[in-house]
Amino acid sequence: MNANHEDRYVVGVDFGTLSGRAVVVRVRDGAELGSAVHEYAHGVIDTELPSGVRLGPDWALQAPGDWIEVLRVAVPKALAVAGVPAEHVIGIGIDTTACTVLPATADGTPLCEAYPDRPHAWPKLWKHHAAQPHADRINAVAARRGEPWLARYGGKLSSEWQYAKALQLLEEDPEIYHLAERWIEATDWLVWQLTGVETRNICTAGYKGVYQDGRYPGDDFLAELNPAFAGFTAKLGGTPAPLGGLAGRLTARAAEWTRLPEGIAVAVGNVDAHVTAAAADAVRPGQMVAIMGTSTCHVMSSDHLAEVPGMCGVVRDGIVPGLWGYEAGQSGVGDIFAWFVENSVPAAYAERAAELGMNLHEYLTSLAERQPVGAHGLVALDWHNGNRSVLVDHDLSGVIVGQTLATRPEDVYRALIEATAFGTRVIVETFEASGVPVEEFIVAGGLLKNRFLMQVYADVLRRPLSVIGSAQGPALGSAIHAAVAAGAYPDITAAAAAMGKRTPEAYLPDPARADVYDRLYAEYRRLHDHFADGAMLHRLRAIRNEARA
Amino acid sequence: MNANHEDRYVVGVDFGTLSGRAVVVRVRDGAELGSAVHEYAHGVIDTELPSGVRLGPDWALQAPGDWIEVLRVAVPKALAVAGVPAEHVIGIGIDTTACTVLPATADGTPLCEAYPDRPHAWPKLWKHHAAQPHADRINAVAARRGEPWLARYGGKLSSEWQYAKALQLLEEDPEIYHLAERWIEATDWLVWQLTGVETRNICTAGYKGVYQDGRYPGDDFLAELNPAFAGFTAKLGGTPAPLGGLAGRLTARAAEWTRLPEGIAVAVGNVDAHVTAAAADAVRPGQMVAIMGTSTCHVMSSDHLAEVPGMCGVVRDGIVPGLWGYEAGQSGVGDIFAWFVENSVPAAYAERAAELGMNLHEYLTSLAERQPVGAHGLVALDWHNGNRSVLVDHDLSGVIVGQTLATRPEDVYRALIEATAFGTRVIVETFEASGVPVEEFIVAGGLLKNRFLMQVYADVLRRPLSVIGSAQGPALGSAIHAAVAAGAYPDITAAAAAMGKRTPEAYLPDPARADVYDRLYAEYRRLHDHFADGAMLHRLRAIRNEARA
Repeated sequence: MNANHEDRYVVGVDFGTLSGRAVVVRVRDGAELGSAVHEYAHGVIDTELPSGVRLGPDWALQAPGDWIEVLRVAVPKALAVAGVPAEHVIGIGIDTTACTVLPATADGTPLCEAYPDRPHAWPKLWKHHAAQPHADRINAVAARRGEPWLARYGGKLSSEWQYAKALQLLEEDPEIYHLAERWIEATDWLVWQLTGVETRNICTAGYKGVYQDGRYPGDDFLAELNPAFAGFTAKLGGTPAPLGGLAGRLTARAAEWTRLPEGIAVAVGNVDAHVTAAAADAVRPGQMVAIMGTSTCHVMSSDHLAEVPGMCGVVRDGIVPGLWGYEAGQSGVGDIFAWFVENSVPAAYAERAAELGMNLHEYLTSLAERQPVGAHGLVALDWHNGNRSVLVDHDLSGVIVGQTLATRPEDVYRALIEATAFGTRVIVETFEASGVPVEEFIVAGGLLKNRFLMQVYADVLRRPLSVIGSAQGPALGSAIHAAVAAGAYPDITAAAAAMGKRTPEAYLPDPARADVYDRLYAEYRRLHDHFADGAMLHRLRAIRNEARA
Repeated sequence: MNANHEDRYVVGVDFGTLSGRAVVVRVRDGAELGSAVHEYAHGVIDTELPSGVRLGPDWALQAPGDWIEVLRVAVPKALAVAGVPAEHVIGIGIDTTACTVLPATADGTPLCEAYPDRPHAWPKLWKHHAAQPHADRINAVAARRGEPWLARYGGKLSSEWQYAKALQLLEEDPEIYHLAERWIEATDWLVWQLTGVETRNICTAGYKGVYQDGRYPGDDFLAELNPAFAGFTAKLGGTPAPLGGLAGRLTARAAEWTRLPEGIAVAVGNVDAHVTAAAADAVRPGQMVAIMGTSTCHVMSSDHLAEVPGMCGVVRDGIVPGLWGYEAGQSGVGDIFAWFVENSVPAAYAERAAELGMNLHEYLTSLAERQPVGAHGLVALDWHNGNRSVLVDHDLSGVIVGQTLATRPEDVYRALIEATAFGTRVIVETFEASGVPVEEFIVAGGLLKNRFLMQVYADVLRRPLSVIGSAQGPALGSAIHAAVAAGAYPDITAAAAAMGKRTPEAYLPDPARADVYDRLYAEYRRLHDHFADGAMLHRLRAIRNEARA
């Protein structure tokens, strides 16, 4: 595919956990003409700072300079691969993981530049989990006070989000806290670097910053957590900007980094999961997009607000302007399969897989897919990494029922795949029972490549699956947002319709298999409901924690 | 140890599933002077008869000639190893697996000699499981009629026992059934071969043949199962003889096989598990002997009769004359560990174990034993092969709860070991709650060699463990019975005290570990009671069976 000199292009950049990816996309039809990946030099900083200072358990940081390097390396490289002249690019959009958040000065300088030996001066990555005690206090105080926003987050804010991380900062390094004139999501910080102007986005403000009904939580709530926490929201910038909006124009400095033309449109920042909805052309009400990888994130817009039990969050304009954006999730999906393959598959299987030129996932899948539904006699709960939706309990754990002396590894592997599909069905049914219909189920993410797994989901959900038509959904989504910001389309919905890629009915349910899955799902629900209160699982975890203390 | 010319000796022969073992034992003190093993040429006949006739699923047969070969080969070899002159041997005793049972003519000739192509003419091994439908009918009819003996078998007769196997014979090959003038346990058939006289033993008559209060089940019961089944008990011989009794004298033919003196005492036959109690000097009331191997069998005598829920059987004189003999069991123990090691341990562990010169059981144990109690956060139900006591339900299956992405193979291995210990504790507590006190817990069998596992049992049971002092318990027990039959001791109790070997308090419970195990056991009981009705596990099995049909 060669660049046509009449065509115009946009660049989308997706900042992931270990690397950043830039893609050059044709505005007219969303064709992806070239892409490039650049790995972060520091990766995830989880044991010690670059200066050698040791970090505590469950810490996870990133280096802002690594992100800038993606702009300097991956963007020009993607342009070169695409064969697109820079002057034909009309806009750039970005997305990052979230909540990945950093303290900065009033001009946007990260505090880790001046204080490289202070762990709290660095950006905290989404999976920094050292603020759980702070999250627990936040939730207890919010519940006691009856904070009106709490129900919009399934009754609990995560330790991964802005308040828990900021409260940890305040209480563990108050000096850095007070030096932090800004507390800013990575996506907004990067947009600031590109435009020279601070712009906050409504997506992270809502899902991670509890910006609801036009305001952040009040100072009396924050003061009850810690008197010094009052006034914290002043560090969060002004009114958040709408998604797809124009954050500003590319500065000369950023143009030099990216080799893109100075002055082109820069879109308001976004989050990897949410921006994928646009890439899948799935931003209309009732289109649920499941981004399935190590974990699964579900995003869906709706034209009305409901309190769906156990969702991660519902935010007005959170996915596209004018609609309520719902987010739900499963905390372990691909991670569970990887854990199983690493810990529970015998040497003989590894040898046989190697003979066949397969990896263990492929080999186990090839064995599992031959079985009739239910032939393994197993049912499992997919809570090995807790349950994000609908139970919102990270201290749950996995359960497997029905093993006999004839149970083989492929049986358990299949049961774990099915368990995650049942977990998805619980989420879909919970939305629908709350009056938020799920009209189409669209899959994006790395697990798409396992066709057997996809078929299991179609059969378990008893509905057709649509699939995204891009292997780089977030970057494509960011490019679509750039096209809107550049004025090439009137809004995200129109841009997604032209540039997004979705194959409807890629997988159709088989009624006979779905009938048997209904019976297995009934068992899953019974197990789910039996263990949902966490009584036994929490006691086991408490015994474990005491034993390890 | 050399044979003293004033000493006298006895020979015990244990007929196992794959081989037979003879041991030469000094009457004075039970010293084991020599032993020899001979493997059965036909092993377990479970796919086709020696003539090539195919067998159905779940069949398991043996060849009587294989047993005779043990007498011809292993007995003389053991004598030679011991350096004991044959003329100093005063008796022989034997034990076999049970219920291992065969059809024979009135003179004891196995029907498989004349009908080698008829599967039903061959001895059915204990683990022949093709008579489950017949067992189900037997139990349904017995329950409906309110047969008084049913409660003495935990409310269910096993498909492994005499009636289910005989009913299958009648209904699948009535000609052989009618030709069978005798239906006889292997142990009694072998005693017949040694003595020339048919003698039935009270142990198999009671536990496998439902001989209770001086009689077998009545013809009206049998006729209700099948009119042609009336009169069946006439094939079972006369009044059973007491254990330790003299069945007869060694015939010239048997003396030629064994190279033992013609005319020496032959003890009444016995069963491998029950005879082990004598070998461990544990035949007094309240001494529970656990024979721990692939599965575990518990035998204990008591001076009074109680209906303990879910035991395998209670038989007057069933272990020693004058006491009630109780039997309970766990259907999967070592088998579960073996299944786990074969199916769930990754290649990296196999490599590391090989580097360390360990097998996988040893390696996993070395990792597991370093953990504080409860540190794995898991609890499991040990029902992978069903539950023999106290639930008497072969259609149950395993459950494991508490797995996370940090769960390692050694964690699960340890949890499975603990689950079997918890299963033992349920049995002990059920006996005690029924008014049958367990005063000493003695371990025999192959799992004795895992010292970590033994310590777990001591801690979980919160009581000292005694251990048997012989690696060939059944054969030693048979030799002790031979000494009684030969008149060297007045009864089994006296002979066991002189010749049996038991180390009291070989393992002592650690109170701190026992405290944590109490908490884990509470979770095990909750799981046990939740799944005990079999509702979910039976539904999963039904779905499985339909899927495989």
